[in-house]
Amino acid sequence: MSDALLTLTTDFGYGSPYVAAMKGVILGINPAARLVDLSHAIPPQDLRHAAYFLDNAIPYFPPGVLHVVVVDPGVGSERALLYVEVDGQRLLVPDNGCWTGLVRGGGPTVRRLTEPRYWRQPVSSTFHGRDILAPVAGHLSLGVPPDDLGPIVDSWVRLEAPAPVQTPDGVAGVVVFVDDFGNLITNIPAADLPHGAVRVVVGVQEVTRLVRTYAEAEPGRPVALVSSSGRLEIAVPQGNAARQLGVGVGTAVRVSR
Amino acid sequence: MSDALLTLTTDFGYGSPYVAAMKGVILGINPAARLVDLSHAIPPQDLRHAAYFLDNAIPYFPPGVLHVVVVDPGVGSERALLYVEVDGQRLLVPDNGCWTGLVRGGGPTVRRLTEPRYWRQPVSSTFHGRDILAPVAGHLSLGVPPDDLGPIVDSWVRLEAPAPVQTPDGVAGVVVFVDDFGNLITNIPAADLPHGAVRVVVGVQEVTRLVRTYAEAEPGRPVALVSSSGRLEIAVPQGNAARQLGVGVGTAVRVSR
Amino acid sequence: MSDALLTLTTDFGYGSPYVAAMKGVILGINPAARLVDLSHAIPPQDLRHAAYFLDNAIPYFPPGVLHVVVVDPGVGSERALLYVEVDGQRLLVPDNGCWTGLVRGGGPTVRRLTEPRYWRQPVSSTFHGRDILAPVAGHLSLGVPPDDLGPIVDSWVRLEAPAPVQTPDGVAGVVVFVDDFGNLITNIPAADLPHGAVRVVVGVQEVTRLVRTYAEAEPGRPVALVSSSGRLEIAVPQGNAARQLGVGVGTAVRVSR
Repeated sequence: MSDALLTLTTDFGYGSPYVAAMKGVILGINPAARLVDLSHAIPPQDLRHAAYFLDNAIPYFPPGVLHVVVVDPGVGSERALLYVEVDGQRLLVPDNGCWTGLVRGGGPTVRRLTEPRYWRQPVSSTFHGRDILAPVAGHLSLGVPPDDLGPIVDSWVRLEAPAPVQTPDGVAGVVVFVDDFGNLITNIPAADLPHGAVRVVVGVQEVTRLVRTYAEAEPGRPVALVSSSGRLEIAVPQGNAARQLGVGVGTAVRVSR
Repeated sequence: MSDALLTLTTDFGYGSPYVAAMKGVILGINPAARLVDLSHAIPPQDLRHAAYFLDNAIPYFPPGVLHVVVVDPGVGSERALLYVEVDGQRLLVPDNGCWTGLVRGGGPTVRRLTEPRYWRQPVSSTFHGRDILAPVAGHLSLGVPPDDLGPIVDSWVRLEAPAPVQTPDGVAGVVVFVDDFGNLITNIPAADLPHGAVRVVVGVQEVTRLVRTYAEAEPGRPVALVSSSGRLEIAVPQGNAARQLGVGVGTAVRVSR
Repeated sequence: MSDALLTLTTDFGYGSPYVAAMKGVILGINPAARLVDLSHAIPPQDLRHAAYFLDNAIPYFPPGVLHVVVVDPGVGSERALLYVEVDGQRLLVPDNGCWTGLVRGGGPTVRRLTEPRYWRQPVSSTFHGRDILAPVAGHLSLGVPPDDLGPIVDSWVRLEAPAPVQTPDGVAGVVVFVDDFGNLITNIPAADLPHGAVRVVVGVQEVTRLVRTYAEAEPGRPVALVSSSGRLEIAVPQGNAARQLGVGVGTAVRVSR
């Protein structure tokens, strides 16, 4: 257990010492911990980005890995810090809802971190990642039982993903994520797409072509396809759809026959 | 063998969940695997950048490390995915030629991945890194013999690096890489440089000074020197040559006496 | 000892093969080494940024970790390369002062690297990180005694952090670091802040509000607070203070009652 796997996901960026400080604190408690960086490029305080990221990253990990997530606009306030067991995964995360998309079927077990004996002292009011989450992660990876961290709670912040809606001739949704290629991922599941020829409108622009792979498409022309997460995606092969179409998260997407 | 070293090189960027998903898949198959990030900042679909990167990174690794490379403009098409043994190194990589600069002397052994029992199911049409390369990497790191992955093939895509040409009074080449400092690395080997005083012209601009180290040079003035890869490089000490000279990959470079 | 922890901090960026080459060299000497990335986004040759980074990262690590730091504007010149033991930490670093902020109480032990038998050959004149620091790190992690690396020296470059000064009605300092959120960290310790209502002026702009946490503050309005490093910080909650105020490292900060 001491060589446990711990992942780190933050909005700290890559130039600041904050990620390094957390790594130091964890390794100071458990020098055998194996640290895996997921991302430190979540846009600052962007909980929806964090939620999409976690939804599409965490389920691929084997059970037992501990995921430490620090996107924390409420740091220093009364917002809780949580230890969560959900769908076989374990997370340490501020109570801001960025993890609730991971709930499938069975409900999660959620504890509020209340036991300062597992924290660094003094606890700063602006960096709970370093002073609370990192040391708790270190102790958990050494085998401290979750019960010791604090009591089970039965309410927490939920971040609802916007749901697509059926329309008379198809389905309407929004762009929920823009990846580093500029691909626009929507909230419309592949199963909701009308069969046969479809018409996709993103913002005010029509994308006529529905393809199966980027490689089928003409470079530079927007196409619609099913993303690797099983949602409708708009992409510009060998280009950047977000930039070319001038759209982003929140842009309306309509699909019709 | 189970605590094998696996490196990851992609063009996925740092804000998207794709790298994390691959790490999760690998660790799901082999929780003892040791993951090493090489880069996730290869520019999107830029095979020449990837090729230069691999040429100047992979040879420094000890034999036996498994290098997973996902720069894959052809994902979902009929392009093959390959397991390659070359010059003592092992790679999993799409068949797009970005690895062929590693071939020295003895020919490589190349297998086409054809055995779906080592893949995730279902295989998406847009993310073979997660669905094929990552699980195959996990299985290889657990000791699955390469023969099991698919048949040896004897043809593959080659990416030819542009060669410098001799001129009456020197040599002509091009910028093949711009590093994060803005240094311009050319395809002209140090051995091809004329002896004595040389004149270097990059695009339309003359660089008069040939130095041995950045520190010898005047800050802010372009100089030519031999790069750490043994090629002619144009740099602006304490500045950014690419930005200052307004040039980039593909710009002509002429060296004369 | 062979599975020793080694951290890497560089200004190489994420798109170039330089970090990967260093990792390859280290793992070629010690395949069991455990590599931890601290940052490769130190701005090019920015020793003050590196110094702040190290000051706020290294002290969180347990003793015995080896920290390899490559921010090296003097590469190839006569500047020394050092092995440093300071405040329980061990570093390999060019002699440019970026580590001297770590000195607390007891003096450091500093050796100059002079033994080429622990280096790669040939040593390039532009990449000592790969050719000297990485191989020395690999050998140290295998148990080579520091005495073998070179002689103890008693002088080295010091980088003095600017000190705040007392004023008739408060204290004056400067911004010494801007983090990835755009928060402005000053050199003014919390203990030097006058009690009671304070007035903070950054550049020409007044920040009237002193808060304890980001969450207490109104989004978009600049506030002053105590940073996680115990210094006066100016932040724009849910915004970017550096961008909004148009200021950066070196900007004067005055605090008065």
